[in-house]
Amino acid sequence: MKLVRYGERGAEKPGLIDGGGTLRDLSGQVADIAGTTLDDATLDKLRALDAASLPAVSGDPRLGPCVGNIGKFLCIGLNYSDHAAETGADIPEHPILFFKANSAVVGPNDNVSMPRGSTHTDWEVELGVVIGKTAKYVSETDALDHVAGYCVVNDVSERYFQTQLTGQWTKGKSCDTFGPTGPWLVTRDEVPNPQALDMWLDVNGERRQTGNTSTMIFTVAQIIEHLSGLMTLHPGDVISTGTPPGVGMGMKPEPVYLKSGDRMDVWIEGLGQQTQTVTEDS
Amino acid sequence: MKLVRYGERGAEKPGLIDGGGTLRDLSGQVADIAGTTLDDATLDKLRALDAASLPAVSGDPRLGPCVGNIGKFLCIGLNYSDHAAETGADIPEHPILFFKANSAVVGPNDNVSMPRGSTHTDWEVELGVVIGKTAKYVSETDALDHVAGYCVVNDVSERYFQTQLTGQWTKGKSCDTFGPTGPWLVTRDEVPNPQALDMWLDVNGERRQTGNTSTMIFTVAQIIEHLSGLMTLHPGDVISTGTPPGVGMGMKPEPVYLKSGDRMDVWIEGLGQQTQTVTEDS
Repeated sequence: MKLVRYGERGAEKPGLIDGGGTLRDLSGQVADIAGTTLDDATLDKLRALDAASLPAVSGDPRLGPCVGNIGKFLCIGLNYSDHAAETGADIPEHPILFFKANSAVVGPNDNVSMPRGSTHTDWEVELGVVIGKTAKYVSETDALDHVAGYCVVNDVSERYFQTQLTGQWTKGKSCDTFGPTGPWLVTRDEVPNPQALDMWLDVNGERRQTGNTSTMIFTVAQIIEHLSGLMTLHPGDVISTGTPPGVGMGMKPEPVYLKSGDRMDVWIEGLGQQTQTVTEDS
Repeated sequence: MKLVRYGERGAEKPGLIDGGGTLRDLSGQVADIAGTTLDDATLDKLRALDAASLPAVSGDPRLGPCVGNIGKFLCIGLNYSDHAAETGADIPEHPILFFKANSAVVGPNDNVSMPRGSTHTDWEVELGVVIGKTAKYVSETDALDHVAGYCVVNDVSERYFQTQLTGQWTKGKSCDTFGPTGPWLVTRDEVPNPQALDMWLDVNGERRQTGNTSTMIFTVAQIIEHLSGLMTLHPGDVISTGTPPGVGMGMKPEPVYLKSGDRMDVWIEGLGQQTQTVTEDS
């Protein structure tokens, strides 16, 4: 099941994409795709609907983030061995955790606006994991039962803010619009193995990142086990699981960063594609 | 005005403490002390009420966090010059930022429960700043106009998780119950100078931290200017502004950490007192 949120920013309605690719309205079924509507019982109820009987949405509405009211946006750093090598970092012993401000989250095709003073804005295609069931001290074996589904995340990152502002990484990760999320929340029954998904990211039509979730250092299940030992993961929390090689910071002979007018296309197998235009704050 | 949220966890009601110390119910006036009810107009409306006409709340109900539905919980690290010295850290050039998971927030007198495996849980009295008006690219001069009020925060910190789990600091800051917030949101009109507040923290009746916000490296206004240049601060976001000397990690001849059964008393001038009992996750 491909769940979406469509409409104007802050007033998104729930919907699904049916087997023929038509957007259908779910407003009569659930208030939102968020928090308490991400539990197995609600998802089963939606799955049992005859999609053809749901109202088709006309036009081509904006898509919002595929999860509403995200509580925590947890990000894992350096989680692909080849990306860690590209940045010159050691392989971490445990998953590296930082937070992206939930106020950074935008729809999959919304503009990404560089903050004032930014000269090092970079891209990162990542597998997003949406928590559906409260998780505290869960084992790797049980971890995926706590997942509602998966989505594409572009973990946009200002490298100077991230590393040179005497803060923690979160400074470069939390700027407004730095969290395109979606287009779809694909429920976990349609992603039998989250560790075998191809992914890529293009800038202005040129392939920059190519990867597969099989090369993650820590699997989705291992990440959930680790994080749920530190804190409760709640329904509607999102975990972004790190990025494969090919970020601008690692390009040779020298780093390349985004500029106003650039276009990013971001894709993960089975989870759909994002397209953002880069702008800058006035 | 001293605003509170009282009642069972997750079902707190809004209230205020009147001039005589009586808890009065505000349910008839506002839905919650949170987000959009923190703007100047709403606070002015509440201030204009005759407190004596509001229903007195009987008994001694639990106090919840003094702000509901916190969006972002932003924390500033090493913001007191004497605390930076105690930890052996350099004076930072800009405010150090990390996030505390909003799921860590609890009431001011709720238990603080150490997560499994914790042996380095520490205390930190901090001045909390509650955002009342959206802030983006605001100047130091205008910054305090965006503040609804102030409160006490205990930025409980697991030092091993914070520094040894190959993560960022947030790992040791985000454990459940690690964010006692309150008792009161004291509106900014009653805190004419947030840079002149005495503060202390006791463990089992022994004074551990003593400080005054006058020794902050970055003032509240400077912090808001800096953060609002990185991301939008929304009503209901909370900024915890760093801790003065006296944390367990810095004790001589060796660090001292919390153990189950310990009691913390946490106080800031004009903002009230918290009292927590330390427990541990089973």
